Amino acid sequence: MRNILVIGAGRSSSSLIQYLLNKSKKEELFITLGDISIENAEEKINNHPNGKAILFDVFNQKQRHTEIQNADIVVSMLPAQFHIEVAKDCVTYNKHLVTASYISKEMEALQKQVIAKGLVFMNEIGLDPGIDHMSAMQVIDNIRKKGGEMLLFESFTGGLVAPESDTNLWNYKFTWNPRNVVLAGHGGAAKFIQEGTYKYIPYQKLFRRTEFLTIEEYGKFEAYANRDSLKYRSVYGLDNIPTMYRGTIRKVGFSKAWNIFVQLGMTDDSYTIENSENMSYRDFTNLFLAYSPTDSVELKFRLYLKIDQDDIMWDKFLELDIFNRHKKVGIKNATPAQILQKILTDKWSLQPHDKDMIVMHHKFGYLHNNKKNQIESSMVILGEDQTYTAMAKTVGLPVAIATLRILNGKITTPGVQLPIRKEVYEPILKELEEHGIIFKEKKVPYLGYNPENVVG
Amino acid sequence: MRNILVIGAGRSSSSLIQYLLNKSKKEELFITLGDISIENAEEKINNHPNGKAILFDVFNQKQRHTEIQNADIVVSMLPAQFHIEVAKDCVTYNKHLVTASYISKEMEALQKQVIAKGLVFMNEIGLDPGIDHMSAMQVIDNIRKKGGEMLLFESFTGGLVAPESDTNLWNYKFTWNPRNVVLAGHGGAAKFIQEGTYKYIPYQKLFRRTEFLTIEEYGKFEAYANRDSLKYRSVYGLDNIPTMYRGTIRKVGFSKAWNIFVQLGMTDDSYTIENSENMSYRDFTNLFLAYSPTDSVELKFRLYLKIDQDDIMWDKFLELDIFNRHKKVGIKNATPAQILQKILTDKWSLQPHDKDMIVMHHKFGYLHNNKKNQIESSMVILGEDQTYTAMAKTVGLPVAIATLRILNGKITTPGVQLPIRKEVYEPILKELEEHGIIFKEKKVPYLGYNPENVVG
Repeated sequence: MRNILVIGAGRSSSSLIQYLLNKSKKEELFITLGDISIENAEEKINNHPNGKAILFDVFNQKQRHTEIQNADIVVSMLPAQFHIEVAKDCVTYNKHLVTASYISKEMEALQKQVIAKGLVFMNEIGLDPGIDHMSAMQVIDNIRKKGGEMLLFESFTGGLVAPESDTNLWNYKFTWNPRNVVLAGHGGAAKFIQEGTYKYIPYQKLFRRTEFLTIEEYGKFEAYANRDSLKYRSVYGLDNIPTMYRGTIRKVGFSKAWNIFVQLGMTDDSYTIENSENMSYRDFTNLFLAYSPTDSVELKFRLYLKIDQDDIMWDKFLELDIFNRHKKVGIKNATPAQILQKILTDKWSLQPHDKDMIVMHHKFGYLHNNKKNQIESSMVILGEDQTYTAMAKTVGLPVAIATLRILNGKITTPGVQLPIRKEVYEPILKELEEHGIIFKEKKVPYLGYNPENVVG
Repeated sequence: MRNILVIGAGRSSSSLIQYLLNKSKKEELFITLGDISIENAEEKINNHPNGKAILFDVFNQKQRHTEIQNADIVVSMLPAQFHIEVAKDCVTYNKHLVTASYISKEMEALQKQVIAKGLVFMNEIGLDPGIDHMSAMQVIDNIRKKGGEMLLFESFTGGLVAPESDTNLWNYKFTWNPRNVVLAGHGGAAKFIQEGTYKYIPYQKLFRRTEFLTIEEYGKFEAYANRDSLKYRSVYGLDNIPTMYRGTIRKVGFSKAWNIFVQLGMTDDSYTIENSENMSYRDFTNLFLAYSPTDSVELKFRLYLKIDQDDIMWDKFLELDIFNRHKKVGIKNATPAQILQKILTDKWSLQPHDKDMIVMHHKFGYLHNNKKNQIESSMVILGEDQTYTAMAKTVGLPVAIATLRILNGKITTPGVQLPIRKEVYEPILKELEEHGIIFKEKKVPYLGYNPENVVG
């Protein structure tokens, strides 16, 4: 028996645990699933003979040490900021580690120790980051292998609702941590490069600088720029690529309406509001509008944000009930972002029969034999139900597959790493295909941003 | 001889030093002026027999200890973040301290020790904060004394150019630290209360939510909200006041144009730009606009920011030369804010004969004998020249007067404090009048934001 310790039994762990339990007999695995909610853990283990649910508090140092010592490999599905204590213990007790999160500076700082001890700390092996890295590197490596030179790489990902569950005017529901959705774009300007020209978008313009994309069978989407695309140039070995852009996908029209919340200041998480608990949704909205003894909140809102009388965007705000005098915020000392999250959760929560959808789309432009080419590669995954969501599958399965491959000595290069080497991503992508996680690839005419080579 | 140690010989110290040197013989004072630039210090001491200029590095602990031990009172005119080490030494060596800066959390934390030792740590005794506190408290205390109930307090301050030196389209030049002007509004939403309704303005809307004010003989001005006005309710003893607002004054039209820089992201100081040194002003502007192989930077700018062909605002940007292909940024690894500051400094620096101007304006609304009243109080100070600027006078004189009064045992209540007690502000305001720092007060009809008492 090999012991796998999985920490965190949240929504993203269902497919991960299912995969490991399904393989547990043949592969001789025993899975210990720890969570701060024992019910969450028990539900996912479901009395499987090769699994055990435990109450686990990552801040309980003694328990953390004991459980990590007992494991052969550790999977941390905790929120990103909690990985580091687990990672340090993995160094101490010589255990491999797998996470689906971006490599933090603290994690990066363990590099020397991790290599010295011959450990594999595989990170960014969920969906985004994860499947995006692997599927992109596969195409990029193929282009390079045949002598092509990369000109353009654009990558878009979105967690959305399935078309059958798309029932509101925003074409959006929370299929993932709502807080991350409300705070999307915080933490600095978006950075990318187009045709050799650097571009920077501040938060206050992020949702007005969208790009459109069309995905076969699913129609038109939009995307807003996702954080710092520039740093991926060196990660992907594309240091001199003239166009590099990463974006987050939404249905068309979402971003323009979301920008209204940004402009109002409702996504601010840096201060708390006095007497927030007893405030109505209408009072909350009025906090961000100029005082008037006579004009209605609605009229002030329209004028301030320049929303015409016949603009369909208006109905999106009505739908969210932000002008309601009776609904109460009900949270003490709440930040604007917390209150907005509450308001949105009322309307954007998945209903029992709702299904989610993951959309990923890459564009690769390259020069080959003096000819410009473009490949587009798309993946659309629909959730099965509220447990085996598209998000849980696409985040959990690559984590699970990588965990087993490290345990079985198939991934051995030590270090704090992400899955960009061929020997890592190739078998994982292949196995993901067996689970229906498949990219459709097609050649299209090269477009870029300057197809005629105009000197601008 | 009593020894006064003044640390910092920057622009704001000229009137302060002049005042102390003028009184030095009669009051038996010896002034030691320390600065990181000995030339700055020597220029201000100007070989006066009762003064000495020294090279002083606040991070040189040994020197700091020696000089503070030798002093009877210490004045710190350093940038705000450097006061704390000086303050701690003042506690150690039992010295009074005077600063013109906001009380920081670290300064506040010394309260117990300062009181235990019977020391006076007088802060916020410059212009803003400083004269604003004192002049406001004088009117507020008078209103209370005659039984009035405060309904509204609004306070506006601006450092501008004198009308005779107002020669550009922005009606603005740098009369103070340019960096503070570029970063104005950073650090969280503006907060205030109007007619009992809390209002929050995020940075991205701060410069579009201005208020207008008219000052006799000087015409119309605008003001944008200044940080957190709410916390001044308790400072001024106005916890239940329905309207409280603090603002920064500019000439009309400045804020709407400044907002363009905010929207573009040019005031961001959180990241550096690749290859900034060799970039032209035009390249810099283009970083924040969408890529196009054909459209000009000018056209993209106009469309993105919705600037009509006949909008005078356009000429403000032309005047700043932000579309110039030949002018180079010339700063390595610069942040957008640093580059913007460079561009503005080219055009907004004070010329040798330019004079500055300080404008302060308060509105006090109150209920007295069942009648609503309003008092407006204004101060306009013009600079004499580039040394004895309005800013240097209004910041330095209250600091100097307070320093001498503490030294002479006229201010004795110990503690980390600001000048809001009558026994502190009354004689200082009186003496400031002798130096031409005079408020004009007048009664006007009560306005408020809801003069008809409409239930909104």
